[in-house]
Amino acid sequence: MSKSSKKSKPGAAGKAGKKAAARGVLKLRISYGEGLILGPGKIDLLEAIERTGSISAAGREMGMSYRRAWLLVDELNRMFERPFVVASTGGASGGGAALTDFGRDVAAAYRRAEERTRIAVREELGPFDKGAR
Amino acid sequence: MSKSSKKSKPGAAGKAGKKAAARGVLKLRISYGEGLILGPGKIDLLEAIERTGSISAAGREMGMSYRRAWLLVDELNRMFERPFVVASTGGASGGGAALTDFGRDVAAAYRRAEERTRIAVREELGPFDKGAR
Repeated sequence: MSKSSKKSKPGAAGKAGKKAAARGVLKLRISYGEGLILGPGKIDLLEAIERTGSISAAGREMGMSYRRAWLLVDELNRMFERPFVVASTGGASGGGAALTDFGRDVAAAYRRAEERTRIAVREELGPFDKGAR
Repeated sequence: MSKSSKKSKPGAAGKAGKKAAARGVLKLRISYGEGLILGPGKIDLLEAIERTGSISAAGREMGMSYRRAWLLVDELNRMFERPFVVASTGGASGGGAALTDFGRDVAAAYRRAEERTRIAVREELGPFDKGAR
């Protein structure tokens, strides 16, 4: 468990690459009440769980501790009435984690909203980029 | 100078009111590089400076110290090649601050992008709100 990941943001900046990172990389955070925030980090984590079938593997991939990954999943699962992630027991590996249909749908909807936001930011604020340092 | 405003977010939540605050209040943060972030707090501050003609009055209105308000303005003025805020000297009050045309244009563009984002979030994620706690 490394301590180096306290504030790492592997999401938007990581995927967008260096060039895009320099100008107008956006972060869309949606608050569902006291401390319950849906943002790029949690969605990245959900997608990593979908890909790896495991909370610990997903956390590792994102450079966060298992504890941090688990806390984020717990927060997600308390945010709506239905859970985003469920334990998938059994199998040789002794069980892992999987997204529910609901979790998959919300993650996809977030990505659609994010893409529309990206377009809006590019169109509205792009004209000022030439003046950005 | 109260110390209570270290992390206050008078922007989105404050304006949207209590009901809207419960579901999907969004925060659009656009990063222009290392620590240079355009977000709702800075835009609120710019609008308050426009309204009050003063950095200290704007900060007070937002419940932040003069120092904090000044640091945010300084960050904004270093973010692009042109400044957002200039000192307006003279007059009985001994000078205040005003937005440049550039600052006014970027703030307005941010608000347009934010409104488009709000619509996208409502359309894409709204259907899941009934499941939100």
